[in-house]
Amino acid sequence: MSHVVELRSDTFTLPTPRMLRAAAEARLGDDVYGEDPTVAELEELSAKLLGKEAACLMPSGTMANLAALLTHSSRGDKAVVGAESDIYVYEAGGAAVLGGVVYEPIATAADGTLPLDAVAEACEVDADDPQFALPAVLSVETPHNCRGGIPLSPAYLAEAAAVARRYGIALHLDGARIFNAALALDVSAADLAIHADTVQFCLSKGLSAPVGSMLVGDAQSVDSARRIRKMLGGGMRQAGMIAACGIVALTEMVDRLADDHANAARLASGLAGLPGLRLDPEPPRTNMVFFSVDPDTTAHTTASLIEAAQTRGVRIAELGRDRIRAVTHSGVDTEDVDRAVAVLAEVLASAPVAGGR
Amino acid sequence: MSHVVELRSDTFTLPTPRMLRAAAEARLGDDVYGEDPTVAELEELSAKLLGKEAACLMPSGTMANLAALLTHSSRGDKAVVGAESDIYVYEAGGAAVLGGVVYEPIATAADGTLPLDAVAEACEVDADDPQFALPAVLSVETPHNCRGGIPLSPAYLAEAAAVARRYGIALHLDGARIFNAALALDVSAADLAIHADTVQFCLSKGLSAPVGSMLVGDAQSVDSARRIRKMLGGGMRQAGMIAACGIVALTEMVDRLADDHANAARLASGLAGLPGLRLDPEPPRTNMVFFSVDPDTTAHTTASLIEAAQTRGVRIAELGRDRIRAVTHSGVDTEDVDRAVAVLAEVLASAPVAGGR
Amino acid sequence: MSHVVELRSDTFTLPTPRMLRAAAEARLGDDVYGEDPTVAELEELSAKLLGKEAACLMPSGTMANLAALLTHSSRGDKAVVGAESDIYVYEAGGAAVLGGVVYEPIATAADGTLPLDAVAEACEVDADDPQFALPAVLSVETPHNCRGGIPLSPAYLAEAAAVARRYGIALHLDGARIFNAALALDVSAADLAIHADTVQFCLSKGLSAPVGSMLVGDAQSVDSARRIRKMLGGGMRQAGMIAACGIVALTEMVDRLADDHANAARLASGLAGLPGLRLDPEPPRTNMVFFSVDPDTTAHTTASLIEAAQTRGVRIAELGRDRIRAVTHSGVDTEDVDRAVAVLAEVLASAPVAGGR
Amino acid sequence: MSHVVELRSDTFTLPTPRMLRAAAEARLGDDVYGEDPTVAELEELSAKLLGKEAACLMPSGTMANLAALLTHSSRGDKAVVGAESDIYVYEAGGAAVLGGVVYEPIATAADGTLPLDAVAEACEVDADDPQFALPAVLSVETPHNCRGGIPLSPAYLAEAAAVARRYGIALHLDGARIFNAALALDVSAADLAIHADTVQFCLSKGLSAPVGSMLVGDAQSVDSARRIRKMLGGGMRQAGMIAACGIVALTEMVDRLADDHANAARLASGLAGLPGLRLDPEPPRTNMVFFSVDPDTTAHTTASLIEAAQTRGVRIAELGRDRIRAVTHSGVDTEDVDRAVAVLAEVLASAPVAGGR
Repeated sequence: MSHVVELRSDTFTLPTPRMLRAAAEARLGDDVYGEDPTVAELEELSAKLLGKEAACLMPSGTMANLAALLTHSSRGDKAVVGAESDIYVYEAGGAAVLGGVVYEPIATAADGTLPLDAVAEACEVDADDPQFALPAVLSVETPHNCRGGIPLSPAYLAEAAAVARRYGIALHLDGARIFNAALALDVSAADLAIHADTVQFCLSKGLSAPVGSMLVGDAQSVDSARRIRKMLGGGMRQAGMIAACGIVALTEMVDRLADDHANAARLASGLAGLPGLRLDPEPPRTNMVFFSVDPDTTAHTTASLIEAAQTRGVRIAELGRDRIRAVTHSGVDTEDVDRAVAVLAEVLASAPVAGGR
Repeated sequence: MSHVVELRSDTFTLPTPRMLRAAAEARLGDDVYGEDPTVAELEELSAKLLGKEAACLMPSGTMANLAALLTHSSRGDKAVVGAESDIYVYEAGGAAVLGGVVYEPIATAADGTLPLDAVAEACEVDADDPQFALPAVLSVETPHNCRGGIPLSPAYLAEAAAVARRYGIALHLDGARIFNAALALDVSAADLAIHADTVQFCLSKGLSAPVGSMLVGDAQSVDSARRIRKMLGGGMRQAGMIAACGIVALTEMVDRLADDHANAARLASGLAGLPGLRLDPEPPRTNMVFFSVDPDTTAHTTASLIEAAQTRGVRIAELGRDRIRAVTHSGVDTEDVDRAVAVLAEVLASAPVAGGR
Repeated sequence: MSHVVELRSDTFTLPTPRMLRAAAEARLGDDVYGEDPTVAELEELSAKLLGKEAACLMPSGTMANLAALLTHSSRGDKAVVGAESDIYVYEAGGAAVLGGVVYEPIATAADGTLPLDAVAEACEVDADDPQFALPAVLSVETPHNCRGGIPLSPAYLAEAAAVARRYGIALHLDGARIFNAALALDVSAADLAIHADTVQFCLSKGLSAPVGSMLVGDAQSVDSARRIRKMLGGGMRQAGMIAACGIVALTEMVDRLADDHANAARLASGLAGLPGLRLDPEPPRTNMVFFSVDPDTTAHTTASLIEAAQTRGVRIAELGRDRIRAVTHSGVDTEDVDRAVAVLAEVLASAPVAGGR
Repeated sequence: MSHVVELRSDTFTLPTPRMLRAAAEARLGDDVYGEDPTVAELEELSAKLLGKEAACLMPSGTMANLAALLTHSSRGDKAVVGAESDIYVYEAGGAAVLGGVVYEPIATAADGTLPLDAVAEACEVDADDPQFALPAVLSVETPHNCRGGIPLSPAYLAEAAAVARRYGIALHLDGARIFNAALALDVSAADLAIHADTVQFCLSKGLSAPVGSMLVGDAQSVDSARRIRKMLGGGMRQAGMIAACGIVALTEMVDRLADDHANAARLASGLAGLPGLRLDPEPPRTNMVFFSVDPDTTAHTTASLIEAAQTRGVRIAELGRDRIRAVTHSGVDTEDVDRAVAVLAEVLASAPVAGGR
């Protein structure tokens, strides 16, 4: 078996030949001096695509999110976030550790929304009472990774923005996969971004660029985030090499996300027929399929299933307790999907290897 | 009406004549140099009473809790706390803001416990995965203020300690009113403290000292907290004046907490008979009575009830959304309790004043 | 020998009988609720004396200074401070450690001033260049402790304020012993405070109160500092007991500082005649005498001298490398001064005990 | 005039054709999962070249330095640094702002060394006295940028390491241009690195890679820094594209630094003959020429000279107050150097344009 079906994440996407060529041919400068023309072009393009004034290239989504939270909050403020959001769970608590911001996690609904009455309650603190950290920013995530890749509706985003405005706080949108969300909702990314003060999106997931995320927003917020980027160590020299790939990502790789969504649907449909698995949500809304092992109908555990699949060249991973995620992307075609279904069917038909963790 | 019945909190307790005399007669020194004999005496007494190696006088419970969290955690670690605990809700997020610690709030059960499976889940993070903040300390609160003053059982504390040990993290006990908890459980404070690495308790609530809280624990933790105290600005010069009151508090004011508990029971019993109020928990376990306004049986709101009572010389306060707390203490006698019941009965019997906030 | 001459610091001052009586008789309330009338009285008195809008009682000068620095700066800003100032050297780096503020220490002149061209240079950073932390606050100290208790002239303060204004930053005055400075300069404390946005002064040094420092300034700064005080754990309950002593300190203990200055002059004059000692500065300007051991004319070392004096009941201490400080205060009278001179003369006349550290 | 002579910094170096080809052909993986083989290869090569156990790719030298300082220090510790070092002056105070570390800047000698008695004095604090931040790390810089690119001798590094060891603190070497230092000293980079616990060096300055710096050190320190990198947002996905350029930088671009040094010497020699300029140091030791405008012999100011040169296609920049830096690198050949000398000669021969800032 030579080829591996990589479904652990769309972060495994490789740059396309066009990206590599663009990188090799890019006009470069020192971006720490603000003199890299390709970075400037990518930032302009990103801002335009998202309907925002300005954009800043970051080495990662983690840094883009962190810089956004710090931009919107002062020392001692609190950030209202989803209890199962990537920004709270998977980014090492950076805003608290590094920036003196208190996270207030809100229990997330099944559809990835944060119930707005709970958000409002978190915001309703007596500003004169020094016992309380004061809210400064609300962050929501679309599509919501740990909630199965479900996109937030424009209506919800509008309501979230209204709540944020009511309390005078900023709305940050962690839109790591915002183009997947936009596709699923049949709107533009700008239609989603319009509700938020700042938006983070990744060039490096479904869009397949090797490195980089963008933070977009009003000019003042982006300026502030750019300052913070320097302090965090995210200023990169001839970053145009990376940016060139990002430009290709934004101009050539957005439309093809439809293939990933179709493949996710195909995968879900194949897995739904297998005994021993439970899909949730079903059907998938974007490029992720979440499922769990049903202990009543199979002797497999989450770990034994993942391990057995890996042995057979299909890589899937646990995300959250006893949930398995399979993500489709540009490195996965229809044949790969079918092979993944076949492999999992074969695995489920056999007993797990003893000693599987 | 000359005398006010102060039920908003036991933090309103005034020092007793014996305390004032002790303060005036105390042998003093500069405690920042470690030379105040009265502070030393209080610290020794506190450690002994709680069965710990060492103790440190702090200007407040907030500082004692903060110093404990910082002592047990390094930059980037997380503190597992109750979502409705004072340490998380009412202390301005100090450990995150000032110390680079991420709070992970756990939903609190009705009895004030943090479900230990949820605690364990919060602790079960892959230490090799830099996405995650690593757990360093678990904090539990007894009696649990926002849960009606319910004490945590020694059995629960033992189990919590076992979970903490299993994950190699410290257990901090926010025992602001630990002597109330001990009384309710008919054990000694040391019987509770034995399970925790560090314990905070207040000299200034039911024990009626004017100022001060103690942090007790092993010598190394207390040394570290003392260092942090200096940085926070909690080093006080002739603190023996305060400590003298604390010594009286610990030697003369613990036993009389039984009166407060009896008065709380009497108050609850009186209020239980009033239409329009719902008590929860009932009966009270320590010195707090929590109740809410039943919108089905009275036109009063939380705010109108509080305001009307205050007009009639009875002070109660909202704690949490639409919950009213009445706390008994050394400044409240049986007569005061009866008067409070009578005033609330009278208030409920009349329509609220229009425009009550 | 029963009585010890305590010259290590004026922080060793004990409360006067009038203070103890005031503490015992004070009207008290819960200051965390803002309801302690004696604290309110002290704060009002302090603001008035210093010519400022508002004041806030703090448990220590460290906290008052820290709260001021944090009030004037946002995360990432820098505080321009003296390289030998107490705020930089002796307060554990709190603003950096806890508040994300970068200290920029400026070499201090012999008279305790920070050369204003160096201050200006520290402030002249390109605000658009994210390489640099931006200045937010300048802190100066009067009298300057490590520079021998020399007071800053009103003219210097005015110039420092002008520099701060030019760069749009705040001026904080660490006036721990501001009344000593005012006395030495024959002006009022308000004449000095007028140049600063916020001023810290101690109730507990020469003024002899047991505990507490005041932060005074404009209402908004003091409000902000009060919020920070809560987070740091400096909110104290029946703080009126402390405040009552502070009121006596401010009303009865200021004028007598003249005795301390006279005693310092007397002490300096006595020591100046002793072989083996070098005084610097000479004569003392306030209540401190600094001197060092001259290795050319005595076999004593700093350590052996201190130790030998202590054995004979005179306590002095090293402050800074190989400098000895002797501080006069309300616990030291003329006779004590003479005894100190005699003891040091006797010590210097004898060889140091072998093995002295 | 088509071609610009870029002497502002060697950060303007462009990737070579071999780098671009290597980037296009690199085997890639998701480095956040630790699965990028090219990153692994670069890290192994870097560690080996510097004689260390482990290495970690960072997006910038700022992040590498920051991660190193945080790795070596806990909350509240202090970092002893040079008062004119890049890590203190040009990196936004990150360790203080983000990590709760206090910088203690030491005045730097003319040769870029920190006088070790001053370092020792900074380290000699009473660990039991909570007034003081405790030292955790010493950072030195070679070649010292603001001191004219002078390399630290191996003997000095050995002594600095001995001081660090004596006080139990770590030694970090900011070796952004360590290969220039090694060349100037005719030793290997490993001969310099051997004295330090961790070393930072840049792939993107003289070595001409587009992006990236390496942190090398013992395995445990590098592991810790890698964890911090994730939190800061420095984890990059298919970072192998960048790493591939870094491998070329390390294998093909080190030897040619000799050309840059020769060109710097040639430039210095040319400038030394011009009236109105003062060189310091002279001759240059690595690839930097520092000079200032002599107000006695020319009407030009720093600003007018820089501006006039830029108009004529020669870019130089102020670094520090009234000092001009010209840096040679792979984008500057002998002809460029001669042109720069000619242009500056021409500029100095003419009066400055009025109104030049």
